Amino acid sequence: HQSYAFKLLSGRKDRFSTLRKENGISGFPKRSESPYDSFNTGHSSTALSAALGMVRAMQLQGDPHHVLAVVGDGSFGGGMNWEALNDAGHSQAPLVLLLNDNEMSISHNVGAFSAYLTRLRSNHGYVRVKRWVIRTLTRSSLLFRILDKAKNRLKYLLSDGILFEEMGWTYLGPVDGHNVRELRLLLERAQSMERPVLIHAITRKGSGMMRAQQDPTKYHAVNPWYVASPDEGKRGVSMAKIAGNLLTEAAETDPGICAVTAAMTDGVGLKSFAEKYPGRFFDTGITEQHAVTMCAGMSTAGVRPVMCIYATFLQRAYDSLLHDVCLQDLPVRLFVSHCGCVGEDGETHQGIYALSMLLPMPNLAVFAPCTPAQMPVLVRKALDWDGPAALCYPKEMVPCDEAYEASDRSVWPVLLSAGSSGTVLISVGRMAAICLDAAQKSERSASVIAADQLSPLPEEGLGKIMGYGKIIVAEDNERDSGFGVKLRAELDRRGYEGRVVCIGHKEKVIRQADYRRQLELSGLDSTSIAKEVDRE
Amino acid sequence: HQSYAFKLLSGRKDRFSTLRKENGISGFPKRSESPYDSFNTGHSSTALSAALGMVRAMQLQGDPHHVLAVVGDGSFGGGMNWEALNDAGHSQAPLVLLLNDNEMSISHNVGAFSAYLTRLRSNHGYVRVKRWVIRTLTRSSLLFRILDKAKNRLKYLLSDGILFEEMGWTYLGPVDGHNVRELRLLLERAQSMERPVLIHAITRKGSGMMRAQQDPTKYHAVNPWYVASPDEGKRGVSMAKIAGNLLTEAAETDPGICAVTAAMTDGVGLKSFAEKYPGRFFDTGITEQHAVTMCAGMSTAGVRPVMCIYATFLQRAYDSLLHDVCLQDLPVRLFVSHCGCVGEDGETHQGIYALSMLLPMPNLAVFAPCTPAQMPVLVRKALDWDGPAALCYPKEMVPCDEAYEASDRSVWPVLLSAGSSGTVLISVGRMAAICLDAAQKSERSASVIAADQLSPLPEEGLGKIMGYGKIIVAEDNERDSGFGVKLRAELDRRGYEGRVVCIGHKEKVIRQADYRRQLELSGLDSTSIAKEVDRE
Repeated sequence: HQSYAFKLLSGRKDRFSTLRKENGISGFPKRSESPYDSFNTGHSSTALSAALGMVRAMQLQGDPHHVLAVVGDGSFGGGMNWEALNDAGHSQAPLVLLLNDNEMSISHNVGAFSAYLTRLRSNHGYVRVKRWVIRTLTRSSLLFRILDKAKNRLKYLLSDGILFEEMGWTYLGPVDGHNVRELRLLLERAQSMERPVLIHAITRKGSGMMRAQQDPTKYHAVNPWYVASPDEGKRGVSMAKIAGNLLTEAAETDPGICAVTAAMTDGVGLKSFAEKYPGRFFDTGITEQHAVTMCAGMSTAGVRPVMCIYATFLQRAYDSLLHDVCLQDLPVRLFVSHCGCVGEDGETHQGIYALSMLLPMPNLAVFAPCTPAQMPVLVRKALDWDGPAALCYPKEMVPCDEAYEASDRSVWPVLLSAGSSGTVLISVGRMAAICLDAAQKSERSASVIAADQLSPLPEEGLGKIMGYGKIIVAEDNERDSGFGVKLRAELDRRGYEGRVVCIGHKEKVIRQADYRRQLELSGLDSTSIAKEVDRE
Repeated sequence: HQSYAFKLLSGRKDRFSTLRKENGISGFPKRSESPYDSFNTGHSSTALSAALGMVRAMQLQGDPHHVLAVVGDGSFGGGMNWEALNDAGHSQAPLVLLLNDNEMSISHNVGAFSAYLTRLRSNHGYVRVKRWVIRTLTRSSLLFRILDKAKNRLKYLLSDGILFEEMGWTYLGPVDGHNVRELRLLLERAQSMERPVLIHAITRKGSGMMRAQQDPTKYHAVNPWYVASPDEGKRGVSMAKIAGNLLTEAAETDPGICAVTAAMTDGVGLKSFAEKYPGRFFDTGITEQHAVTMCAGMSTAGVRPVMCIYATFLQRAYDSLLHDVCLQDLPVRLFVSHCGCVGEDGETHQGIYALSMLLPMPNLAVFAPCTPAQMPVLVRKALDWDGPAALCYPKEMVPCDEAYEASDRSVWPVLLSAGSSGTVLISVGRMAAICLDAAQKSERSASVIAADQLSPLPEEGLGKIMGYGKIIVAEDNERDSGFGVKLRAELDRRGYEGRVVCIGHKEKVIRQADYRRQLELSGLDSTSIAKEVDRE
């Protein structure tokens, strides 16, 4: 989301009104969109690794150019960036790392590194001397060579950014990132050095636009709006907020409950939890791996951690979840929001791999509510589960509260609507309301069942499902690795002889558009599903 | 593997002869084995995150104890450890990090941080002063308070380990890690500080055992051996070595090929490549995420990176692979070794999720050889593939070279043996020889087919498969998320009406044993498969 100005300046001004819309330009750098976008981004902390790869490839081919990576101070805390910093600092590659330090990731930054940057920023008096030094000293000068020899101790007195220097990087800064002349001076200096150089630029998030400066978190990623009424097109109620509020409620009576987020307090709905229980709330920064394994550690020592995270960012903690939580069978709870299509963020942020990741994990229970009204029941179920448990919900969903409340909720799966034919629609998560709609639209009558518990599969419910001659599973997940194929395998083992149709995302790269449109393009809209019901 | 001495000292001396054997004690710390093992480990860099979780949980419950994490210098470079270092340094938690610095991970360490530690180690003259300082200075002393006020600059002169200090940690050391008295002194000092303290201990890998000191890489993880003949029980030829040698050969004629490993040069078979093409070989340290995304960057700049990695460690690069390689459709090649059961390392190192991870990835081609003789063909195919490609092979496999070489290798899938009934065994990877054996053992005749290309599914071969009335898929992968369910879904879409049986690991936690025994326990041995052929 920090590439908008760059996009305006690199040939995309005329298409800018299509930002984050279907067939429009992306909210992130995208190679297919412009030769000026050298690497696709979306998740944080990838730039330096990619840049090091590029410069190494160029060196092998005798290309003497530099590569510049722009990394925000929030992304800097991500483990991958440290890995790259370590590797690159040793490489002697002509690499420039521009640290865009606005004291923010999406919300305010945390951690020791952030505090370190604050100390660096406050070295105002020193900047002048420093600036003189970098202007005067070139690698060939006598003074440089003398200082270079009196290594270790002396350089501490002359250099800011010791942390970076110790990691093999030359540190230049801090510099006002909005001062083009100063910045250019440092970039030229960095280029002349032919080695890894870090430029520390201080910027202000949302600079130049008062509204964004005042609420930078809200304006981190925005859709176009009408200037006269900026709140137009507001979303319905957010599932993450519902989950966060229910967790806050549960924490009232259960003092063991702790909430953990990786720099997404607002996004995962934990604002009220953080305000009410600051001592039991942990924001670890953009560090998904660490956060999940930390939860594993917490759970061995008597508290009940709940990790709240977007499905797409959970991808980065795949091994932490598998290796540290699930293999050990530790009672860590994951509240996984933004499962399935997420809309405008596009392919890098889709949650369509959530079930592909979670269902194969050992010991992990997986739940998905069919409607917001089911959330309190499943939040309780996940919290009470004896072992690791994941509760999966989308960013937003069409409710079918009435059908849910009219059903017999004591059995699995939930029969939302009984049809008169031998065909059943089994919905996963947000597909419930859409399947109910499809059953209405279809000519052949079909029952609608919500599979709210996805793993382990409750034995007793399977018999009921096998009573139908045609089973259609609809899920907002990659088609061949979600709940449908898991259920299919179980049916095969039980000798089921009817037909099974799994509807999900065949196309694995889902581009930006309204999420309803994304579902429609994958045949996950009620009209397409109704056709599947009617198909011979 | 570094916990053996600890195990001997904490009640497992009598069972030590069962190390890494079926039903024996594990090569890693294991909670179920001893109350002294507080967290299961296997993959590197998890200790500090877990320890921070524990100490936070204890603080919430008013427990004033300290938590100690032991981290090797190789693990220190892992991103997760940096994430935890950053979070903990800010936490003021009573946490002690014992940095076990033996200059090794499995092989020699790389990166700027490693160089930094070398500089710290060489501060011998300084250690004496330092030792005096830490002995004399307590937080309450006047000198301490004076120095504490003259912050930033002055402390650089007094303190080693500035990098750690800047991250919020108090640095103590370096100390000789084999000197118990000295180490105890520092531990007591650290405990008195009630804040994050890092103790830098210098050790020698394999200390006290000449054979291990001389070849620490080989003795990183060992099985019991007879003292008289240490090479007894040697393994057959390693698949990783075959892959590495083929890659080295290919690199001869293709100057664009580069090889990348995350601290596993030997393990993934890249020793000869590294010796022959040092400029095109990159060992990034224990940094799987960075390494994979670096490959993505390399591939955008004109070279052809091949990432060689164990399946279990690829889990840590799940998001790098999905987000940076596959979504961008970049021609990065993955040579994934140790797919399926790995034997003695046990549950943390199993490669039984390899296909669960890889098959759902967008744009990714996945290949698996049915026998060593097929490796050259598939290595070539993977290298020539237009887009991202993964070649998956086990640690070792029973060959069926003859059957393979007698088959028509120009079509997919490979018909290894034609039976006379309507039953077919479809083998994935190492299951080929076992399936051939099963076909021999079964009473009913069955054809045996090797699915060497797992994704995308070649259209033209599916018709052939559908000609069989009973299809048995055998794969050394988690049962409900591998190739079987993917093929099953495709068969459903084509209206296949026969029977499908998928054999794989139902149990998702596969404990240590010989890999053949692990297969047998999951019904992946020839006798069990033969029974499946004969079942009505």
